[in-house]
Amino acid sequence: MSDQYTPRPQDKFSFGLWTVCNRGRDPFGDVVRPRLDPVDAVKMLAEVGAWGVNLHDNDLVPIDATPSERDKIVRDFQQACDANGIVVPMATVNLFYDAAFRDGAFTANDPDVRAYALQKTMRAMDLGAELGARIFVLWGGREGTETDACRRADIAIKRLRDAIDFLCEYSIDRKYGFRFALEAKPNEPRGDIYMATTAAYLGLIPTLAHPVMVGVNPEVAHEHMAGLNFTHAIAQAWEAGKLFHIDLNDQVPGRYDQDFRFGAANPRAAFFIVKFLEDVGYDGSRHFDAHAYRTEDYCGVEDFARGCMRTYLILKERAARWNTDAEIQALVQEAGHTKMQYSAPAREALLNRNFDRIALASKELAYERLDQLTTEVILGVR
Amino acid sequence: MSDQYTPRPQDKFSFGLWTVCNRGRDPFGDVVRPRLDPVDAVKMLAEVGAWGVNLHDNDLVPIDATPSERDKIVRDFQQACDANGIVVPMATVNLFYDAAFRDGAFTANDPDVRAYALQKTMRAMDLGAELGARIFVLWGGREGTETDACRRADIAIKRLRDAIDFLCEYSIDRKYGFRFALEAKPNEPRGDIYMATTAAYLGLIPTLAHPVMVGVNPEVAHEHMAGLNFTHAIAQAWEAGKLFHIDLNDQVPGRYDQDFRFGAANPRAAFFIVKFLEDVGYDGSRHFDAHAYRTEDYCGVEDFARGCMRTYLILKERAARWNTDAEIQALVQEAGHTKMQYSAPAREALLNRNFDRIALASKELAYERLDQLTTEVILGVR
Amino acid sequence: MSDQYTPRPQDKFSFGLWTVCNRGRDPFGDVVRPRLDPVDAVKMLAEVGAWGVNLHDNDLVPIDATPSERDKIVRDFQQACDANGIVVPMATVNLFYDAAFRDGAFTANDPDVRAYALQKTMRAMDLGAELGARIFVLWGGREGTETDACRRADIAIKRLRDAIDFLCEYSIDRKYGFRFALEAKPNEPRGDIYMATTAAYLGLIPTLAHPVMVGVNPEVAHEHMAGLNFTHAIAQAWEAGKLFHIDLNDQVPGRYDQDFRFGAANPRAAFFIVKFLEDVGYDGSRHFDAHAYRTEDYCGVEDFARGCMRTYLILKERAARWNTDAEIQALVQEAGHTKMQYSAPAREALLNRNFDRIALASKELAYERLDQLTTEVILGVR
Amino acid sequence: MSDQYTPRPQDKFSFGLWTVCNRGRDPFGDVVRPRLDPVDAVKMLAEVGAWGVNLHDNDLVPIDATPSERDKIVRDFQQACDANGIVVPMATVNLFYDAAFRDGAFTANDPDVRAYALQKTMRAMDLGAELGARIFVLWGGREGTETDACRRADIAIKRLRDAIDFLCEYSIDRKYGFRFALEAKPNEPRGDIYMATTAAYLGLIPTLAHPVMVGVNPEVAHEHMAGLNFTHAIAQAWEAGKLFHIDLNDQVPGRYDQDFRFGAANPRAAFFIVKFLEDVGYDGSRHFDAHAYRTEDYCGVEDFARGCMRTYLILKERAARWNTDAEIQALVQEAGHTKMQYSAPAREALLNRNFDRIALASKELAYERLDQLTTEVILGVR
Repeated sequence: MSDQYTPRPQDKFSFGLWTVCNRGRDPFGDVVRPRLDPVDAVKMLAEVGAWGVNLHDNDLVPIDATPSERDKIVRDFQQACDANGIVVPMATVNLFYDAAFRDGAFTANDPDVRAYALQKTMRAMDLGAELGARIFVLWGGREGTETDACRRADIAIKRLRDAIDFLCEYSIDRKYGFRFALEAKPNEPRGDIYMATTAAYLGLIPTLAHPVMVGVNPEVAHEHMAGLNFTHAIAQAWEAGKLFHIDLNDQVPGRYDQDFRFGAANPRAAFFIVKFLEDVGYDGSRHFDAHAYRTEDYCGVEDFARGCMRTYLILKERAARWNTDAEIQALVQEAGHTKMQYSAPAREALLNRNFDRIALASKELAYERLDQLTTEVILGVR
Repeated sequence: MSDQYTPRPQDKFSFGLWTVCNRGRDPFGDVVRPRLDPVDAVKMLAEVGAWGVNLHDNDLVPIDATPSERDKIVRDFQQACDANGIVVPMATVNLFYDAAFRDGAFTANDPDVRAYALQKTMRAMDLGAELGARIFVLWGGREGTETDACRRADIAIKRLRDAIDFLCEYSIDRKYGFRFALEAKPNEPRGDIYMATTAAYLGLIPTLAHPVMVGVNPEVAHEHMAGLNFTHAIAQAWEAGKLFHIDLNDQVPGRYDQDFRFGAANPRAAFFIVKFLEDVGYDGSRHFDAHAYRTEDYCGVEDFARGCMRTYLILKERAARWNTDAEIQALVQEAGHTKMQYSAPAREALLNRNFDRIALASKELAYERLDQLTTEVILGVR
Repeated sequence: MSDQYTPRPQDKFSFGLWTVCNRGRDPFGDVVRPRLDPVDAVKMLAEVGAWGVNLHDNDLVPIDATPSERDKIVRDFQQACDANGIVVPMATVNLFYDAAFRDGAFTANDPDVRAYALQKTMRAMDLGAELGARIFVLWGGREGTETDACRRADIAIKRLRDAIDFLCEYSIDRKYGFRFALEAKPNEPRGDIYMATTAAYLGLIPTLAHPVMVGVNPEVAHEHMAGLNFTHAIAQAWEAGKLFHIDLNDQVPGRYDQDFRFGAANPRAAFFIVKFLEDVGYDGSRHFDAHAYRTEDYCGVEDFARGCMRTYLILKERAARWNTDAEIQALVQEAGHTKMQYSAPAREALLNRNFDRIALASKELAYERLDQLTTEVILGVR
Repeated sequence: MSDQYTPRPQDKFSFGLWTVCNRGRDPFGDVVRPRLDPVDAVKMLAEVGAWGVNLHDNDLVPIDATPSERDKIVRDFQQACDANGIVVPMATVNLFYDAAFRDGAFTANDPDVRAYALQKTMRAMDLGAELGARIFVLWGGREGTETDACRRADIAIKRLRDAIDFLCEYSIDRKYGFRFALEAKPNEPRGDIYMATTAAYLGLIPTLAHPVMVGVNPEVAHEHMAGLNFTHAIAQAWEAGKLFHIDLNDQVPGRYDQDFRFGAANPRAAFFIVKFLEDVGYDGSRHFDAHAYRTEDYCGVEDFARGCMRTYLILKERAARWNTDAEIQALVQEAGHTKMQYSAPAREALLNRNFDRIALASKELAYERLDQLTTEVILGVR
């Protein structure tokens, strides 16, 4: 039953292989769903209307697979993607599951671990390139500490920079054409993770050897965990030309990483996110990095996946309605930005200008009305 | 009664004029302390052993003072500083108290407000320069939103950049020699403040017209409010050469802006902060941006100020002890960073190397022991 | 222009006098709105369609008013209420603004402060009774600490209990017929406030001398500040027969007390709150304890007040729709509770029963589908 | 090498079997430590100086063990305890790991799951009684929701009450003499857990059929996750006579469940906890519910266990020092509580008393000084 909220390929909805294959294990409980083969996951994604699938190396290829096992797995997967019309826009590397990375990967104190992390990433890049991915995400889940006694945090940053520089060279060398998207998170699984926010990576990128190749992959839950405004985070990334990818999901602030269905924790926050992406013309993947509740079987996983996309499309329609609502538009006072260019005359004019503070404080802003109308657009009563 | 924890000028301890003059007003209660004249505040700071005093324009000069009133106030204050051996290392501007700024200052939708904010800042720079300050802090307390319906966040960033560029020109033009230190905060008094974290400014600075002139002023409480690791935040700023100033205080995560005495909420977090600053050789002000509990009279304000400095010095001594504790040093495995330079041979060597994951996962790290020893250094039992 | 979301008296919408009279002062900024006389506030409330007004003693009567001033003020206010058809369902006492309460009121270390707090409350009860209020709220905004060195927390609880017991006696004695509603908050303005959550008062009440007279007044923002589920909090209060009053507003978790318009931070959380109140048949006031953004003038204050009520009514309609949505109802599996009565045969039957864990883990729950349908009811697309 | 901080049996330090046997698995990573047999865990606990070991049923007996396997395991464990002089003061039941409990145990919508949860708990009580435990902890890790659409929260509370009532009867019936200690947590692994705080259970207990048998088991991390003051939580429990057990560990507010070594996140908060327990004469277990970092091998697990106890004893010594520090004691103004008994004369006297608000606001409290001295006691410089 198709309607205006049915996903289409041009919506560019993608899911991580790890999201629909998530088996429901958590710190206090065992798996609740049987293993889902990547080939079957691709079929499921096609069935629910997704456009793309993304993956960590080990989502597809077990860490101890032989080269021939690896090749067969990749071939079968590629065929499943082709057969189902699913693309692989992004690839990434798992540098957090194996015990070897318990003290970090690129930032670990052990140089052998750092070298192994690089090698594993290079191979994951080979895999991603083979599958056609053009975005390569780096999430350093173990790059952090429980005690800052273990290393100086500035040393960790230097190590991280070196690794990224090295990997950029590898991409150039191999002509992979990757754009790297760095993903931040404040904590979990480490007590504190270095590069806690998307903004931390925006600060790091200009210090890299190949800053043009590197952007960010902000995740809703990772900013919301720290109680930060996600729309503001992606606005800064976008304005800096660095919004290479995005991870959509949901999360209540100040909690463990919940990875809920997009819009499931706070549809208002989700509305502003969708509105921003659509208003500025973001044309990358709308990637969902979330998973079904642990209460669900695979029917529930499909419900979860459908719900992510459907809520996005509902909110996209609401954002368009907001943009054409006459009462709302009459209240929106923003007049863009008009740069005040510095010069001696401009300086003197400004210093000599008399401002009426009372008048400045008296112009009606009507933000309560504007926000209430926005709420009513979101709730569908106008 | 002087001891090893008595502050000396070379410790570079400074306080905001607003901190010791804070009268205890809060959202639910009235002032509890009478007004303290800036001249008396300087005397108090000298008495407790501080080195410097910092100020917003309106901490010293009322917003509606006439030029001649202003000049007399500044002259008296300057004399009090000289008489008491107190310097003014930093100045800043109040762009948050007056109702004119209720929708922001540099990012407000009203261009007149933005212009007024620039003018007010230029005059505050004049004042700071007159008093000898070389650091100028910008904290955009009202640059934010309660509803993101009011403006697009990327527009706000453009406005902010323009303002900073303009002010850099003014400093150059006037030969003030200011280095600007940008101060982030996630929320309060606005629902969300743009540039929520120190890292957001580290991302903004490279996009400015005069990036070399601009750094950051991280505040403990502002990062802790968002539950972020402050030591990691200043490490990134330091590593980027941008730690121009620092605001020391304390705060329990996930709460209103508490501005407690340094070390009063979590002495362990304070230890790692002090240790980082001392280890890397930070030589700027150790500025305290905090205030006495509302339960206190001015004796309590002095206790508060003394306590900030004393706790810093106790923790500094502990950091030195940690650095020379043989058992601890034997556990510290960090070996700096050795850059792996990319080249075809390096690539091949790395790709062909065999890593033993089990062995990598088996090296003893002993971080529990290291952290327990650190705890015992902090608690003074070793 | 009246529609289905226009408030009516039977909706029992009330506002605190302090909410519409809020002048926009905050920790970093001055007032932005002129003083609104209580008489004018009553008119405004009538105009926007409210049913009741609630007040602290000093919202109406200045703390230093003479008896005759007090009587005139009260008479004028009563007349305004009568003239505008506004009732006063609840009264409360301000034990937080004056500097005398800087260390607490009922829990202060100074016995004179404790006595004064009791006297002030008795007089506020006199006032409330005179105005016809039947609910008396107690919020101990200053009952807490910045340092737990100042008193043992169990002593504070004893002092609090004594005060409540005393005030119950006073109500009985005066035949006021008050039911006390205790309001919790985790922090702000104190570093930590005793009785941090609604549940803390549910634990205290059974230990009082007159537990039947005492219930709770949960506030959305106060539970959300601590990241707690407000619907769960009121469910426990309701189930215990203790939901005497409620404070509706909104708040992002882990922040300063934002007191936003109801539904303005998270309409989904607001939906579950409204649904619970309506489903169980709560028939007390729907009281709004919030205030307009600081960007607003008094037109904005009216927008704010209208918005609170309108959003409640929209969500109430959505809750009714949810209750009659066939697809949703088919998914709701809850079968009430059937008490398993203990007995020797019941025990033996239970111990001997064989449970099939696999089967128990396999029943479809379809909570993702249920929640997505709920989201779509909230967003108005079904 | 024994010193004043070496644990002794009279310190009543106990550890969960699950804590030292924790293998380091987390949501993003695999196990890092091999399985530790319970018998070996008991030896390790004896070696590090613990007094007791506590356990969930399935920490010791696999969920699918046959009766004869179960009996052998229990016998071996009992012998190991006897041989090593380790007692089993507390037992509990695992109602969260198995997929059968994915929607809750006592509060699940499926009556068969509720019945199975009861049966499993009865058998865990049999086991606990056999091992000599007198405290039985109930932590409902799965009693909660991701979406409140799934059931009404008040129904969940009724189900929970029924289960506890049933289990009390079973304990009475079997003459086990158990005291039940209910353990709260706000979230994780469920989106929201019912009975989010210790106080929620203090509110529930008076509504039970056997309130005298039931108390609470507060856990530091569970209150700190919600940013609540743990000392205040245990003070209320203690004052109500309900502090039956305690779970000591550490946690940064607003994060995933970190279960750090006691005192490892905030030694100041830990100081006030220890001081309270020692000051009031709490004589139950000092139970540690934490685990070693994932970076550690079993040497690190021993370091972790030793560190928990050692930090407790250091802080206990500091609390004693605080109690005898003359300067501190001179500042402590608390004079206990003197109940003001209600009567007509008392009422009149109070109503007629004239209070000098200025004088009340002027008494010196010196809490900054008091807190700084407390900090210095904690840091060991006085």
